[in-house]
Amino acid sequence: MTTHQNQNQLFVGSFIYSKNLDELEYLHGAAICVDKEGKIVAVERDCDEQTAIETVFPGLGWSADEVVVSVTKDGQFFFPGFIDTHLHASQYPNVGIFGKSTLLDWLNTYTFPLEASLADPLKARKVYSRVIRKTLSHGTTCAAYYATVDVPSTNLLADLCLAAGQRALVGRVCMDQLSPAYYRDDSPAASLAATRASIAHIEKADPGMRLVRPVITPRFAPSCSAPLMRALGDLAKEMPHLSVQTHISENAGEIALVRELFPMESTGAADDSYAAVYDAFGLLTDRTILAHAVHLSEAEADLIKTRGAKVSHCPCSNSAITSGAARVRWLLGKGIVCGLGTDMSGGYSPSVLEAARLAALVSRHVAMGGDEKAKLSVEEVLYLATKGGAEVVGLEGRVGGFEEDGEEDGNVDVFGWESWGDMVAKWVYNGDDRNTKKVWVKGRLVHERK
Amino acid sequence: MTTHQNQNQLFVGSFIYSKNLDELEYLHGAAICVDKEGKIVAVERDCDEQTAIETVFPGLGWSADEVVVSVTKDGQFFFPGFIDTHLHASQYPNVGIFGKSTLLDWLNTYTFPLEASLADPLKARKVYSRVIRKTLSHGTTCAAYYATVDVPSTNLLADLCLAAGQRALVGRVCMDQLSPAYYRDDSPAASLAATRASIAHIEKADPGMRLVRPVITPRFAPSCSAPLMRALGDLAKEMPHLSVQTHISENAGEIALVRELFPMESTGAADDSYAAVYDAFGLLTDRTILAHAVHLSEAEADLIKTRGAKVSHCPCSNSAITSGAARVRWLLGKGIVCGLGTDMSGGYSPSVLEAARLAALVSRHVAMGGDEKAKLSVEEVLYLATKGGAEVVGLEGRVGGFEEDGEEDGNVDVFGWESWGDMVAKWVYNGDDRNTKKVWVKGRLVHERK
Repeated sequence: MTTHQNQNQLFVGSFIYSKNLDELEYLHGAAICVDKEGKIVAVERDCDEQTAIETVFPGLGWSADEVVVSVTKDGQFFFPGFIDTHLHASQYPNVGIFGKSTLLDWLNTYTFPLEASLADPLKARKVYSRVIRKTLSHGTTCAAYYATVDVPSTNLLADLCLAAGQRALVGRVCMDQLSPAYYRDDSPAASLAATRASIAHIEKADPGMRLVRPVITPRFAPSCSAPLMRALGDLAKEMPHLSVQTHISENAGEIALVRELFPMESTGAADDSYAAVYDAFGLLTDRTILAHAVHLSEAEADLIKTRGAKVSHCPCSNSAITSGAARVRWLLGKGIVCGLGTDMSGGYSPSVLEAARLAALVSRHVAMGGDEKAKLSVEEVLYLATKGGAEVVGLEGRVGGFEEDGEEDGNVDVFGWESWGDMVAKWVYNGDDRNTKKVWVKGRLVHERK
Repeated sequence: MTTHQNQNQLFVGSFIYSKNLDELEYLHGAAICVDKEGKIVAVERDCDEQTAIETVFPGLGWSADEVVVSVTKDGQFFFPGFIDTHLHASQYPNVGIFGKSTLLDWLNTYTFPLEASLADPLKARKVYSRVIRKTLSHGTTCAAYYATVDVPSTNLLADLCLAAGQRALVGRVCMDQLSPAYYRDDSPAASLAATRASIAHIEKADPGMRLVRPVITPRFAPSCSAPLMRALGDLAKEMPHLSVQTHISENAGEIALVRELFPMESTGAADDSYAAVYDAFGLLTDRTILAHAVHLSEAEADLIKTRGAKVSHCPCSNSAITSGAARVRWLLGKGIVCGLGTDMSGGYSPSVLEAARLAALVSRHVAMGGDEKAKLSVEEVLYLATKGGAEVVGLEGRVGGFEEDGEEDGNVDVFGWESWGDMVAKWVYNGDDRNTKKVWVKGRLVHERK
């Protein structure tokens, strides 16, 4: 693969990106310079290649013959890479395979057997290589992955992300109860030790966390004993540079189970809610990524806001396994930071663009319930898919990679009379991996469509 | 385009199709013979190419060197063509462009201006050619199209379908009130005359309705005066070989409007419901295709069942423009025949497979409302997309065209350990036009993916 790593690069043409939740910036005839380290060092409006060479390169000390140039063709545009804030790399082979299940039976029927089987390193390599390739092909430049309980294969996932150039949070899954004996940690102590081992491997593999970083990953409250929850809360305090990721309030049965497993008398929680359980164990922090958050109470949402925890909205999964319709407008209204997750394989699609599309649709189902303001616009779902997601995974201001997008030979038909806003709406609703021509992370070309 | 028309053909390999609502038939190592007229003349289990040549061809009077042979590769299968029971060919350029609108403002803002503009024959040719090409590429072998008010361009749509080899019902849109002055029929008489002119053209273009047929198309009750409704009801009686297509009960505002426009005292309807209005004018027949049917009452559904009218379920559109979640399980439970419609551009996707996927998702949103049995399975949504749709458009037992499907270089990743049932589920949830390699209608190869 051509990478252009360690070369200065010039990107020229049309750039589209979220200014804020409500607005996209359309920048045409602009130029962006990216240095050898993959950092954006200049953004120039009204600038073509020749102008950049003459007026921008001298200030950067660049000479034109050393610079790799990428120019958008008619109808193409650069767009920031998508952030997938929640997905299980280990479940990728099961996308689309969920029958009529709901969360708890889905875990036992489809999910645990597959995850356990990835202790086989050859199988893990095959699955993880393909999920990275597939998500890159859909423009996902940064992913918050759950791997499995197994340390070597979790470490392998991190190594493969590093080799492929995909930014990633990679979490070894902690679970010491309520899952099959063939697939769980032996004890809280064993779980903690395995987690430390995986963190140590990943931090050594990518010192400074340039691309890949470990993430503390209690699967979800029902799979973790109170001692394990406590130990992971302490670990989060010990390692304030790491994010925490887990699930919350996805499904009614799960919520009842948490209430039963963690009575407030035993945890010392402030109330008997799901959010209060995580909070009691020190896991509800401003570095915590909470997937789903479908059935939160007002008090839980307020607690999450107070603690600064973030929400990964996973509309594909929530609809597919009949979990519910998350009220994203309500979460945003409380000031809670939200991003999007594909949640493969509860969700069937590897595409954050599909997640954005389904976030728009699910918001309309919330609106059908009476709250007309619940509807999310094209601008809003693209914000969640990029800037919102960056904030969820703790990389706000750092994920500046742009992908180049176009309208050739895919599923989007452009007639020539559309406005740019219309073109973006058409892309959001019918675009797929074919519209993603090239993907860069930190200036490195990590995917190219032939 | 290679067509293989007027040649005998042999199809060998794996065939998957709906046996009934609940079951798919998986036929591996089978052979199907299609004669020069495009009719299936033999279906043989446990039969390869050589066996077919030796044991089947003699009985058909075929010699092997005159027969075109198509064989599925590993992981590929033949699947019946999809039936799109409701779409507006004229709205295709607007797919994805609907903002936060709902039905009535969507019509005025996005839809009427575009439809009116297709009176320009060059523009109509461009739009209609592309919608036919696009739907064929997604495996739609039969489509129930709405064109526009304009006769020449409606006729052009029929001519283009005929030339491309796509089965189609083509309807000139009847509307003489409550739409902008620039886009409506001048009077009930003018509307009827224009409709007759279009019917005459299409019947002359394809005598015997081999591929293309006209369809009586009152847009929906609010756009038609009572005299026009009456005239079209009479026309349906006069032409019992033609289907009728219209919309029903899509959106709350529309339903209120119908009640206001057609008080039961004026129509002589049995009650003040939307279905009773169509019934009062003779438009609720066993050849009537009713799009949407989201908010029907028990009595309306019972009336529809009694009259034998059919329902086109359009989940993409219903979610996108916030119309509601149709209760398909409830309709099926009443014995009402249902198929799927893309309803472009209320729906944004040209793909019936996407409609099937969204029918599954929307049924889960209905289930979230409390009816766990509402969920539609992979088998059920594929039935709606094929056999159900055939019955909706009045071609049951006649649409036997098969498309060849495969798993190469698309968005579906197959690992090799999946069952055939799992492969079909993966295709339903992540497949797209890339998985449709070739499409035949009546034995003619009408689309091939290079």
